Amino acid sequence: MADDKKLTTRAADFSAWYNEVVLRAELADYSPVRGCMVIRPNGYGIWERMQRTLDDMFKATGHQNAYFPLLIPQSYLAKEAEHVEGFAPEVAVVTHGGGKKLDEPLIIRPTSETIIYSMFAKWVQSYRDLPLLINQWANVVRWEMRTRLFLRTLEFLWQEGHTAHTTHDEAEEEARRMLGVYSDFMEGHMAMPVITGLKSNSERFAGALRTYSCEAMMQDNKALQAGTSHNLGQNFAKAFDLKFQAEHGGIEHAWNTSWGVSTRLIGGLVMTHADDNGLRTPPLLAPIELVIVPIYKTDDERAQMLEAADRVVEMLHDWERREPGRLRVHVDTRDGMKPGAKYYEWELRGVPLRMELGPRDLAKNEAVLVRRDTREKRPVSLNAIGEEVNELLMRIQDDMLIAARERREANSVRHTISYGDFKELMEGKGGFVYAGWCGGAECEAQIKEETKATIRVLPDEEFRSAEAPANCLKCGRPSTAEAVWARAY
Amino acid sequence: MADDKKLTTRAADFSAWYNEVVLRAELADYSPVRGCMVIRPNGYGIWERMQRTLDDMFKATGHQNAYFPLLIPQSYLAKEAEHVEGFAPEVAVVTHGGGKKLDEPLIIRPTSETIIYSMFAKWVQSYRDLPLLINQWANVVRWEMRTRLFLRTLEFLWQEGHTAHTTHDEAEEEARRMLGVYSDFMEGHMAMPVITGLKSNSERFAGALRTYSCEAMMQDNKALQAGTSHNLGQNFAKAFDLKFQAEHGGIEHAWNTSWGVSTRLIGGLVMTHADDNGLRTPPLLAPIELVIVPIYKTDDERAQMLEAADRVVEMLHDWERREPGRLRVHVDTRDGMKPGAKYYEWELRGVPLRMELGPRDLAKNEAVLVRRDTREKRPVSLNAIGEEVNELLMRIQDDMLIAARERREANSVRHTISYGDFKELMEGKGGFVYAGWCGGAECEAQIKEETKATIRVLPDEEFRSAEAPANCLKCGRPSTAEAVWARAY
Repeated sequence: MADDKKLTTRAADFSAWYNEVVLRAELADYSPVRGCMVIRPNGYGIWERMQRTLDDMFKATGHQNAYFPLLIPQSYLAKEAEHVEGFAPEVAVVTHGGGKKLDEPLIIRPTSETIIYSMFAKWVQSYRDLPLLINQWANVVRWEMRTRLFLRTLEFLWQEGHTAHTTHDEAEEEARRMLGVYSDFMEGHMAMPVITGLKSNSERFAGALRTYSCEAMMQDNKALQAGTSHNLGQNFAKAFDLKFQAEHGGIEHAWNTSWGVSTRLIGGLVMTHADDNGLRTPPLLAPIELVIVPIYKTDDERAQMLEAADRVVEMLHDWERREPGRLRVHVDTRDGMKPGAKYYEWELRGVPLRMELGPRDLAKNEAVLVRRDTREKRPVSLNAIGEEVNELLMRIQDDMLIAARERREANSVRHTISYGDFKELMEGKGGFVYAGWCGGAECEAQIKEETKATIRVLPDEEFRSAEAPANCLKCGRPSTAEAVWARAY
Repeated sequence: MADDKKLTTRAADFSAWYNEVVLRAELADYSPVRGCMVIRPNGYGIWERMQRTLDDMFKATGHQNAYFPLLIPQSYLAKEAEHVEGFAPEVAVVTHGGGKKLDEPLIIRPTSETIIYSMFAKWVQSYRDLPLLINQWANVVRWEMRTRLFLRTLEFLWQEGHTAHTTHDEAEEEARRMLGVYSDFMEGHMAMPVITGLKSNSERFAGALRTYSCEAMMQDNKALQAGTSHNLGQNFAKAFDLKFQAEHGGIEHAWNTSWGVSTRLIGGLVMTHADDNGLRTPPLLAPIELVIVPIYKTDDERAQMLEAADRVVEMLHDWERREPGRLRVHVDTRDGMKPGAKYYEWELRGVPLRMELGPRDLAKNEAVLVRRDTREKRPVSLNAIGEEVNELLMRIQDDMLIAARERREANSVRHTISYGDFKELMEGKGGFVYAGWCGGAECEAQIKEETKATIRVLPDEEFRSAEAPANCLKCGRPSTAEAVWARAY
């Protein structure tokens, strides 16, 4: 099954390493359609856990799921001026259906603001119908020229939240709340620390008033935009005539937000946690949390070890009755394959914890647990195996976040840096640079052209430096906002 | 919110009644794209519960989820001769992407056999890689000319299982197993009884060896094909070069199955259970199982009733700790709306159980429970409210299945019927007719042309009549198989 050639190392070629991990951990595969990938069970299992967790979080904040059409009349895109400018160049167009040319071409949704707000306009009459808090799990298509597995594909899976409110402030609060949900999910479940903040105007979503973003640092020190949340103001409400009878009389346009994360997160997870031996999955998102590998030489020993493995699984399930449905465990019963080959394969696939179960361990009523994150090995008594396994999984989850956070901080520059040094850094090892910005679009554009670095966010207060930078990184004029600069995916 | 005009009755106009229920229960709405609908939260909530239940059943039978591209090269469709003939007339074609005309047009998947088996061919080398048991939750597009909400839409949501096996018999067993899963789900969760069996060749899936189907009877006595499972033989394996090294040497083509159910099931649920007052949802699939409506006249009473409702919710959750996550309960706290208007709305939306909670009930430590299915009302003590509610919900679930089964049997003809009477029946009240068939395609085609009735299935043994019919309904020659005839959606 797994080809046992060593992976390219991160140090040798990060990009080649990334593709190899995705392919060989069987997260995804190339498809016969340019830029479209197949998400294989090992990758889809991670996505299912992401979906389930986020969906619960969306419902806990009052949202309901719905489903809107894949195909959108081309004319709809044009109703919001900035929106069409942003998305028209990358749409896929359906011109024929049922053997006939269509009167009006349809586009495959690149995002669903237009179709959704046209429906909201039909459903909302009065302030009593607001807020309207809807989420959709869907596929979208954007005609990208350069694609990368998970990170940038023609088609991707995502969720898009769309809400309507009576006031600007309520919409703003919603946009910020969902940014917080994303950031909690990324840190709490993906063990991927993020910086949140406001995008500069040049990086704002096409049609939004303000865009907020979660930015994570990958192991090559580049930034990944992991999720965005937009305060759309009244732009789409005006374009689609989304109005309501206000509580104290008069007709007003509603205020909208939209927010989304996608299968790109799986790419982020790989580039945050995988190592030169393959994937490392945070336990909370792992399709398999614990794999048990029986060790034996003879048929008799095999029978004994498989029986012991079954008993261990039973003990684990007994223990977890206190916390039901928690533990996802798999016994690798394949015969004719050496334990070492199995270890290699499960490490490649990123299972967080491995149990080695052999006759000598069993004689001592023990098993050996091996952490995937640190590769630390230790014998544990089978008497308390439930507690041991669960505690260890929780510790792995925590330690992965701590390690990722330390790596990010070690590669962030918060001291004053000259533009020359900044340029050198961006061409070299990269990282996040916290620096002053005059607020001018020209400085931003020049820096991007000269260094390929962009403003990832104007960070939220908790991420800002203790002492605000005094001058613009580029022009030296007084800074109006601290900005986080980095090269990005 | 709800418009309180009476629904058209089923007796007056079944088709108008159906559309009104779907729209006014807010299950779905028309979209600006011809033939495409929007699934609203009340409908999507049912779909989510269907998905969750089926997904668990698929996993319990060894299947894993994956995701394959939406867009398929047009040439792929042509690789299996019957398949292209069946699907080419109804595909949507993408001719432009990213502002350019594509070299080869792409079709939007109408079903995914072609793309999936082309990937299987890449993944399968040896018998050790089989069986390969994959499921996909996805949207598909079929360019239908006449569309109906849920029943026939250009785009619909579904799941499609795709498997590969080493032998014909193993594939056959899989196709039958999944038909059984569907039938268990439809009866056990949707409370919709189905007849299972084999499709005649004329109704076989394009490219299959054999198609099995679950057929349900709607309240207008027409049949609904609710789910199908196909033994694809080696047709696609040959078209896509899906081969494996056999255990005892040699290279063989794999044997495939595919099987699917879609959002059409929601239409089936409506036409099985809804009545002239609106939807009735089986408790296991209801987004809300119990709605509590507080009854009050003064502000003081309102405060008391809301507090009591909260206490009841707490008692229900306490009770269900023995069976966690089971009960979905909602308290209707809307002010300025009469209880009667609330009852009307929740009946329309199909909530299976309603609790009326007023000062007089509370004084007696009671509440009134009203079943949606029978509209039966009875006071219950709050002391045992957990048991009462849960038992009643289970009873509603059971009774809905029994009622639907009785209705179907009352509208099934199992005695010998002349072709003249059969024709009259099909033009009149309709129903299922169990009759003999000579096995000839001409008889089948003539009956269809003259009566619009088709062979729904050649029923599985458990559904066959005690005495096998002797002669063909049409030509009178000896019957080779019993067939279930009906007009269908």
